[in-house]
Amino acid sequence: MAGALLARTLARPSFEAAFAAPAYLRAMLAFEAALAEAEAAEGLIPAASAKAIEAACASVTFDVDALVAEAKRNATLVVPFVNALRAEVAKQSSGAAKDAHFGSTTQDVLDTASVLCLKSCLEEADRSLEAAIRGLARRAREHRATPTLGRTLMQPAIPMTAGLKLARWAVALAHDRTRLADLQAAGLAVQLGGAVGALEALGAKGPAVRHRVAMRLGLADAPAWHVHRNAWIALLDGIAQLVVTIGKIGRDLSLASQPEVGEMRESPPRGDVGLSSAMPHKRNPAGCVHALAAATRMPGLVATVHAAAIVEHERALGAWQAELAVLPDIASCLGSAIDFLEIVGESLVVDAQRMQENLEKYGAPGTRASSACEPATDELLATLAPYLS
Amino acid sequence: MAGALLARTLARPSFEAAFAAPAYLRAMLAFEAALAEAEAAEGLIPAASAKAIEAACASVTFDVDALVAEAKRNATLVVPFVNALRAEVAKQSSGAAKDAHFGSTTQDVLDTASVLCLKSCLEEADRSLEAAIRGLARRAREHRATPTLGRTLMQPAIPMTAGLKLARWAVALAHDRTRLADLQAAGLAVQLGGAVGALEALGAKGPAVRHRVAMRLGLADAPAWHVHRNAWIALLDGIAQLVVTIGKIGRDLSLASQPEVGEMRESPPRGDVGLSSAMPHKRNPAGCVHALAAATRMPGLVATVHAAAIVEHERALGAWQAELAVLPDIASCLGSAIDFLEIVGESLVVDAQRMQENLEKYGAPGTRASSACEPATDELLATLAPYLS
Amino acid sequence: MAGALLARTLARPSFEAAFAAPAYLRAMLAFEAALAEAEAAEGLIPAASAKAIEAACASVTFDVDALVAEAKRNATLVVPFVNALRAEVAKQSSGAAKDAHFGSTTQDVLDTASVLCLKSCLEEADRSLEAAIRGLARRAREHRATPTLGRTLMQPAIPMTAGLKLARWAVALAHDRTRLADLQAAGLAVQLGGAVGALEALGAKGPAVRHRVAMRLGLADAPAWHVHRNAWIALLDGIAQLVVTIGKIGRDLSLASQPEVGEMRESPPRGDVGLSSAMPHKRNPAGCVHALAAATRMPGLVATVHAAAIVEHERALGAWQAELAVLPDIASCLGSAIDFLEIVGESLVVDAQRMQENLEKYGAPGTRASSACEPATDELLATLAPYLS
Amino acid sequence: MAGALLARTLARPSFEAAFAAPAYLRAMLAFEAALAEAEAAEGLIPAASAKAIEAACASVTFDVDALVAEAKRNATLVVPFVNALRAEVAKQSSGAAKDAHFGSTTQDVLDTASVLCLKSCLEEADRSLEAAIRGLARRAREHRATPTLGRTLMQPAIPMTAGLKLARWAVALAHDRTRLADLQAAGLAVQLGGAVGALEALGAKGPAVRHRVAMRLGLADAPAWHVHRNAWIALLDGIAQLVVTIGKIGRDLSLASQPEVGEMRESPPRGDVGLSSAMPHKRNPAGCVHALAAATRMPGLVATVHAAAIVEHERALGAWQAELAVLPDIASCLGSAIDFLEIVGESLVVDAQRMQENLEKYGAPGTRASSACEPATDELLATLAPYLS
Repeated sequence: MAGALLARTLARPSFEAAFAAPAYLRAMLAFEAALAEAEAAEGLIPAASAKAIEAACASVTFDVDALVAEAKRNATLVVPFVNALRAEVAKQSSGAAKDAHFGSTTQDVLDTASVLCLKSCLEEADRSLEAAIRGLARRAREHRATPTLGRTLMQPAIPMTAGLKLARWAVALAHDRTRLADLQAAGLAVQLGGAVGALEALGAKGPAVRHRVAMRLGLADAPAWHVHRNAWIALLDGIAQLVVTIGKIGRDLSLASQPEVGEMRESPPRGDVGLSSAMPHKRNPAGCVHALAAATRMPGLVATVHAAAIVEHERALGAWQAELAVLPDIASCLGSAIDFLEIVGESLVVDAQRMQENLEKYGAPGTRASSACEPATDELLATLAPYLS
Repeated sequence: MAGALLARTLARPSFEAAFAAPAYLRAMLAFEAALAEAEAAEGLIPAASAKAIEAACASVTFDVDALVAEAKRNATLVVPFVNALRAEVAKQSSGAAKDAHFGSTTQDVLDTASVLCLKSCLEEADRSLEAAIRGLARRAREHRATPTLGRTLMQPAIPMTAGLKLARWAVALAHDRTRLADLQAAGLAVQLGGAVGALEALGAKGPAVRHRVAMRLGLADAPAWHVHRNAWIALLDGIAQLVVTIGKIGRDLSLASQPEVGEMRESPPRGDVGLSSAMPHKRNPAGCVHALAAATRMPGLVATVHAAAIVEHERALGAWQAELAVLPDIASCLGSAIDFLEIVGESLVVDAQRMQENLEKYGAPGTRASSACEPATDELLATLAPYLS
Repeated sequence: MAGALLARTLARPSFEAAFAAPAYLRAMLAFEAALAEAEAAEGLIPAASAKAIEAACASVTFDVDALVAEAKRNATLVVPFVNALRAEVAKQSSGAAKDAHFGSTTQDVLDTASVLCLKSCLEEADRSLEAAIRGLARRAREHRATPTLGRTLMQPAIPMTAGLKLARWAVALAHDRTRLADLQAAGLAVQLGGAVGALEALGAKGPAVRHRVAMRLGLADAPAWHVHRNAWIALLDGIAQLVVTIGKIGRDLSLASQPEVGEMRESPPRGDVGLSSAMPHKRNPAGCVHALAAATRMPGLVATVHAAAIVEHERALGAWQAELAVLPDIASCLGSAIDFLEIVGESLVVDAQRMQENLEKYGAPGTRASSACEPATDELLATLAPYLS
Repeated sequence: MAGALLARTLARPSFEAAFAAPAYLRAMLAFEAALAEAEAAEGLIPAASAKAIEAACASVTFDVDALVAEAKRNATLVVPFVNALRAEVAKQSSGAAKDAHFGSTTQDVLDTASVLCLKSCLEEADRSLEAAIRGLARRAREHRATPTLGRTLMQPAIPMTAGLKLARWAVALAHDRTRLADLQAAGLAVQLGGAVGALEALGAKGPAVRHRVAMRLGLADAPAWHVHRNAWIALLDGIAQLVVTIGKIGRDLSLASQPEVGEMRESPPRGDVGLSSAMPHKRNPAGCVHALAAATRMPGLVATVHAAAIVEHERALGAWQAELAVLPDIASCLGSAIDFLEIVGESLVVDAQRMQENLEKYGAPGTRASSACEPATDELLATLAPYLS
């Protein structure tokens, strides 16, 4: 069964793939394999079991439709998943089957798998983000002295420079990038807690096992965060903040792209981009659509994540499941926003002549020269130095 | 490319299928075929063209991945879709190709297709809803005099009856069902307006064409609603209200299912439902998970739909696209809620003895007999008469 | 203690007053007086008691700060309110004191008072709305043949008419107005249910008492809706839809008001409106600020209302209280939007010459004449006939 | 004009006062006084002007209703505010009047004043938070070995300890507290940018002036953040995360307070707290109402803040104003949550005997002893060491 067609036309394919069955099941298996290895290393299960489990994680295949149907019945994907995994383990070693998933629970598997899938998206986003910041920083420096009309409340204010406008975009993105890196350090943590989050089945070895799993998976180690999820939510909020920054850039660009303004465009006109189904002559700012659609969706998703954090006791009934369900949508919005940013970073068109014309036509008489903006621009460009090398 | 795995484990498969590529493309083709037939009937395109277009709508196939990629580039699915359709028409009649999609635009196709896909979900939901109301109404009548403890602010209040509680659920669902029927009458309307919603390419025949398309597709006829979407939004709000009603039932039931309370369960214990991956003895209220996860997600989706209605000029840049993208999620939440309701309607367990015990143990001394609730119960049962026949 | 200063600068004073202590306490007293009268008429309390209660409702005064402090401690305003009311009754008739509030509960008083306060806002909004629709409908008729550039995705599309654009605004508002009237008929209902909503203290006379209270207060009569609030939520959603319509008008107008576009303004420039604190020459579209700030806030409020509907048992712990708390914010957003609409309805400036210039400059070559839009415009003007008389 | 009565019954009075006219105007004046002093120190205005402005900031009084009315007309409070301030300055020195507000703009004053008002709330919240964490940490240590039933999906899972549950609450709060401190360091920054955020009126002295203003007001110094507000939004998100943590504690406590469970209560029963208007015998968990009402409202507020960040050009039309308007609501939710936390930190009742009984009655047969939870508990208690001294 495919995802919804229209949502797919907004999505970044690699981010969509990150949460689809093949990748998500691989992430679940990575957790189980890491868990078995760690438990064997700590003497909690036989080394032979770990070996058999690891092999089974590599060889097991799933009937995804059947898995989904059974997951629905139990309101957890992990029951049929573990059954299938244990059956695969049993093919090699019947005794080892019970050792798979030992000491763990549904939430451990799903939270960790979700973290792993989001991590891959964030790594990819970071590369694009860095490139886009570089592109914008260079354009900002280039237009350091290009006069343009500043606008407030959608009315002409006073002159400023294109460089200041672009430097602000770049600095905002750079701040978001730095913050996201910090948030990932805490938010991309392994989840391992067992039935009530106390690692009770692993005894004194619990923390050591958890640490090993975290190391193998490249995640942070942290006590069970199954019911107090704020490090994770802070990361999701941080993603939303980046999407908002990109949405603001999209808003600015869509306003500047109006032909009556004509000061910027997301890219030079191309024959095959931004086509209209009714008007062959028209070129739509297709990238801005992606940025603004993502920014329009994100606040509702953030609201859901926060609402879903009011969980009951040691595992939520409904709320946590809602959070898991919207995570791919959050990634999808990030993907759309990044797609737009790649366009802007590479091919933004700045029309300095049109800026000058608008300034003369709509600027208030007697306003100060835009050169007054250069100190502010330089202050920002200085913080962009790492992107201007 | 599949949809996100975890979201699928919460989804109702038929609702998920309704918005996936095969069904969604069929709905788009249904619009194009209806449009061609209507335009031919009004003399705007040759009858032969309509015939060729109709045949092409039946025979055309799509490379969905290529379609999605091109849709992404243009921020509209309709450009590559119409290109493929015209190519298929041209196989039969090269002259007819240009007549496909005549006078229409992206938004006409996507809005109408979205309406058609949602319509199929709502029809299915209505059947389940009716059955569930019947089931609950019968249980309400059956427990008309069963005493139970009323609870406010999660503390014992005074005695009431199980029948009153169940009748309220049923009446709330019945109201929502009636309201949804009304909202569908206005909200499931054809979209046909052309480039700026004025049907300008169809001249004086525009409204007649639109009416024919509406009739053929079984939709309401209405002037273009591309930028003022409140009849549609009211329908989506109405769906959200139903999900909220079901979420409240899920909340009540999850509270009543606590073994310390033990007054109701969504269904008798079964060997294969509600399993836990960590605790073999445990039976989770799996249906409540679906209801409450859906109810947790819905407010954020409603917020997105309302935010997306602030559109620019004659077609939005970003906002409308965001609305289209979340529609399948709204349907998905409805599907989860309906899945839960089917369980409750069929197999709700009411433990009158446990209710009596709790009443004796936790009820305030000297409170009135629950028989005082019978007039209120009867008032509700009277409105449920159509469901009690 | 005053409300937050900045929120007040966006608010419509009469709507703000509607929920402030004096008006809100009057509404609570109106409920208690109506209840006493109805209970006396049905023989549930002595006529003398009703008389004393009615007199006390007219004479009682409150120490609002003390009331608020005690309300906070009990998480209900009604306990100290009823204590004060009973003390006032007792001044006249010590025996009558216990008859005040008889058979009622916190939620009855607060829901009914909230309904009454919102009702006064809606009545006022309706008058402004009708006037604004009349104003816009007239301008639409006047500009029925004024050519202007249609714009989609913030790019020029094809020519249309200013009349069509304005008629769409007017029709959308007229639809919302009609829908709101319907929603009020059901949603502005008395709340009377007693401890668990069963009117159990009133016995067989319960529904008759409730009916009398509804009649006296000018509200709809309905069985207790304390825990299933969808008729009420539908009304709040309907208000949100109106605010969204107005927000879309504000967005269009703010785009048209850019001097580079210059096709419309919310009002002719005036010396004392839209001033800037930094730039004396500037005139900001102050009305649009109100419309768009309201439309930006509303989706989050709607989300809260929907989330707050997942209530526990026979009265919510937290959720219902959250709904009550945001109701004045919803009214406030409506007030801001109505304020904007009054400006637009009275003094909208349409610059037909600038529209023609933009059309010539930015319109696609060879596009059809805007006269093609007249049928669509006339279809809309026909539905506006009641506003054009 | 007072604020909405019902919202006041949920509010923390000091937080409500922080955004009401007297305090908010004081904060605006503090900004203007600091600005004048800084500009004089940098030689941009005469020292005598600064002195006169500082004096006027201390002596000026406002007709708040007139201020609000004029603010509404211009969609900015700062125009009438500055007019009044300059008139006051002129009383002492007519020449100095024009130097007031020099180089600044509406957004500078309002953002900085909002930051100052929120800062005072956060400082107060931090003190209560620290005390509550101390209280909970002590209770956690005290109940380190108290067995209780762990519950997942609202069903009994396996035994754990009360200490683990309480330690989790305390650790989550402690994490939030640390994170909030970090977020404040960046998010509580002065806003000073002038017309388009470039400090253009201050020339090369701009950054030095801004730094001086920041120092005097005790705020962070940062380049103008008028249109890229993510450090500020991150702080608001952080507040929301704290409210969510407290909401989760409220949810747990309300579930534990059900008499059928009876394991915890927010405080011992008192004669004057949690009264019901209909049922004299009843004691409602009034603190939980505040916590859960706040947590129910917060996601919608967060959604608004994120949506409001998509601003146009150099100052938003509508969006920024919406953010400012909801800030007091965010503070209000924080206040309610803190109020609850103070109760819990001081007087939480833990009923170890009832926990034991429930464990015996509802615990699964053969589950491990709760002593298995001690390592996990100790891991958490170790991180609470600073609160246990």
